[in-house]
Amino acid sequence: MGIVWEKLYARRLEWMTTSVIRDIFKVIQSSDIISMAGGWPEADLFPVEQIQEICHYLLQKMPRESLQYGMTDGFPPLREAIAEYMTQLGIPAKKENIVITSGSQQALDLMGRIFLDEGDSVLVESPTFLGAIQSFKAYGVRFVPLPLDEEGARVELLPELIERYHPKFMYLLPTFQNPTGVTMSLERRHQVIEIAEAMGVPILEDDPYGLLRFAGEPLPPLVALSLARHPRNAQEGAYLEGEVVYLSTFSKTLAPGLRVAWAVCPPELAQQFVMAKQGADLHTNALAQTIAYEFLRRGWLSPQVQRIRDTYLERRNAMCAAIEEYFPPQVRYTRPEGGLFLWVTLPEGMDATELLKEAAQRKVAFVPGSPFFVDGSGANTLRLSFASVPPETIREGIRRLGEVLKAHLG
Amino acid sequence: MGIVWEKLYARRLEWMTTSVIRDIFKVIQSSDIISMAGGWPEADLFPVEQIQEICHYLLQKMPRESLQYGMTDGFPPLREAIAEYMTQLGIPAKKENIVITSGSQQALDLMGRIFLDEGDSVLVESPTFLGAIQSFKAYGVRFVPLPLDEEGARVELLPELIERYHPKFMYLLPTFQNPTGVTMSLERRHQVIEIAEAMGVPILEDDPYGLLRFAGEPLPPLVALSLARHPRNAQEGAYLEGEVVYLSTFSKTLAPGLRVAWAVCPPELAQQFVMAKQGADLHTNALAQTIAYEFLRRGWLSPQVQRIRDTYLERRNAMCAAIEEYFPPQVRYTRPEGGLFLWVTLPEGMDATELLKEAAQRKVAFVPGSPFFVDGSGANTLRLSFASVPPETIREGIRRLGEVLKAHLG
Repeated sequence: MGIVWEKLYARRLEWMTTSVIRDIFKVIQSSDIISMAGGWPEADLFPVEQIQEICHYLLQKMPRESLQYGMTDGFPPLREAIAEYMTQLGIPAKKENIVITSGSQQALDLMGRIFLDEGDSVLVESPTFLGAIQSFKAYGVRFVPLPLDEEGARVELLPELIERYHPKFMYLLPTFQNPTGVTMSLERRHQVIEIAEAMGVPILEDDPYGLLRFAGEPLPPLVALSLARHPRNAQEGAYLEGEVVYLSTFSKTLAPGLRVAWAVCPPELAQQFVMAKQGADLHTNALAQTIAYEFLRRGWLSPQVQRIRDTYLERRNAMCAAIEEYFPPQVRYTRPEGGLFLWVTLPEGMDATELLKEAAQRKVAFVPGSPFFVDGSGANTLRLSFASVPPETIREGIRRLGEVLKAHLG
Repeated sequence: MGIVWEKLYARRLEWMTTSVIRDIFKVIQSSDIISMAGGWPEADLFPVEQIQEICHYLLQKMPRESLQYGMTDGFPPLREAIAEYMTQLGIPAKKENIVITSGSQQALDLMGRIFLDEGDSVLVESPTFLGAIQSFKAYGVRFVPLPLDEEGARVELLPELIERYHPKFMYLLPTFQNPTGVTMSLERRHQVIEIAEAMGVPILEDDPYGLLRFAGEPLPPLVALSLARHPRNAQEGAYLEGEVVYLSTFSKTLAPGLRVAWAVCPPELAQQFVMAKQGADLHTNALAQTIAYEFLRRGWLSPQVQRIRDTYLERRNAMCAAIEEYFPPQVRYTRPEGGLFLWVTLPEGMDATELLKEAAQRKVAFVPGSPFFVDGSGANTLRLSFASVPPETIREGIRRLGEVLKAHLG
């Protein structure tokens, strides 16, 4: 027989979604279905030729930096370039504030390693990003769900939740939230920072989509508001004091397969990230880090981001117009000003997982909302991605989905 | 003030080495010192032009596979190719047995996530790889040290240690061990598999250097011996039953900066790796995986490995010859048949960390041995790497080190 492995597992790790959803997705991946289920950016927008040019250059000019072992906190010129970039965006930072991670997913995991003991609590928006639930769960934590509305997380509920559950930190996606597409209002942004400071509970601000605003007015990230409250930060041009660990990534602007993201935090905490990351993967892929660095250095990021915004705006518009046309009026949806997703709320009592089975038969797919809720609610919600489907296909997908919905809602 | 971060840390993560050693290494990195301290392969041997050619090809022919999000268990054609490669090496494997990891370091971490609860024990060779200590420590485990001699781990001590401490698994580096360079004899290999099977304690076999044999006769990896004991494996041409999780990597043959390695294990356990890895970094860098795949597919790995073997043999010979010439006779050392390292044992009472300070002044460096021991012993040992230093420089480095030693040993 050999070893009976399962007798030895420390804790049963869990899949992010139910087996029903996984089974349907297996079917989806191998068929001609119109999928609005992915969390993926549009591959046709990847700057392939530019990356090709950069690879050629790097392997000619700096093969060691691209191929040899590197520093755990990241390729120093990339950290430097990101610090400058952050400073331009209103987040005073120096190289010592930046840790490169293997995707933001790794930063979530490292936060767990640094802060979470078995039985600790983490406050999360409800619904929230599946990958965060997966990461934190591995540390044996309990979740404290904070409901959202159209202005983002309902921060007025925070003081009571914090007093009652003492979360180790709050995990927030304030801008074009995954999965809802909702953005936290400026007023609430100020409030949440005040609460974090007053009650001593740090914020993990995950901001993968912030650059992808295609409508409305930009809002400062939480980390910028936090840093502005501590004058030493501006004086030193660095992040010395504050309440926020800020995460951003190249996954939605350059290419997700490169797995290059970064955390911004005080140097003292950056050292903890380094220790945690040493044991996790030594360092992030060197070739990908040098590619990201060259891309920034050549000034190619801004035009690239603009191309993505233009495309996603067109697609969001196509999706919203098709929903207006084809969905029954009882169905509610969000109209995000950026990012990849919108969020659909069906009438109470409907089950989006059941609906997915019917949708798959009509060759259209979405992600049911319930896995995004840590409290088992949200059966009547679902997420639609407009990012990776062309406008005409979106229209057809929404039309089919509308038919499925109408069969239930008359 | 903002948040006082350190009040919130769950467990104090620890550096791999003492602050004394880290301070000296900071000096080393920024000077003209001869360093035999690194665990790095020779960068001059990286197949830079081949990787350049492959990058050009990949971004032309399969940009999506190289840049988009991918599967958590790895790029399927790469898993397939590695399974074939493993089978050729005597380890019957199918795609379902292979999980791609972000360096073997990540596989160590995932093993912790799957198997280790706070307070569990892990059996390790003494001395053992620093990175493994770092990874497992983060799970709050206790270490059970198993001494080594010139035939590898002293497996005759295993039954008593297992009965007494009930380790969750045994972490072994049987071939060209890091840090000692020692290889476990065939007899002991058979014994350790028998013990693992009889006592139900799995083995994590870390084999980053196995391909880099430049002298002596090849020995089967533990996983091959284990699989051969269960006839179903050969019948099905897959790993279905056994006692070993086997780790290998492209870091020492292709390039470490790519961070592509793999685990070989039964499919059931591979699923646990996938769940653990989803939360850790979603998936390994896609571009690097496609590069590794192309490198294998084109048949470029074998000639590349041969080039490395030839170079490292020359360097090991240079190092051993110089040690014979320049070191006092009281100093013992290993003569490895492959890999990157040899191991030096000074007379009892000498302290290699103290010696490093003097060596640094004479512009030569090594790694003191004590951090590789989990029980605080090994003060009189040190590791020398011959891989990344040309023969003439090795000779000069050993000469300088010999002077330092002679000053103490007369």
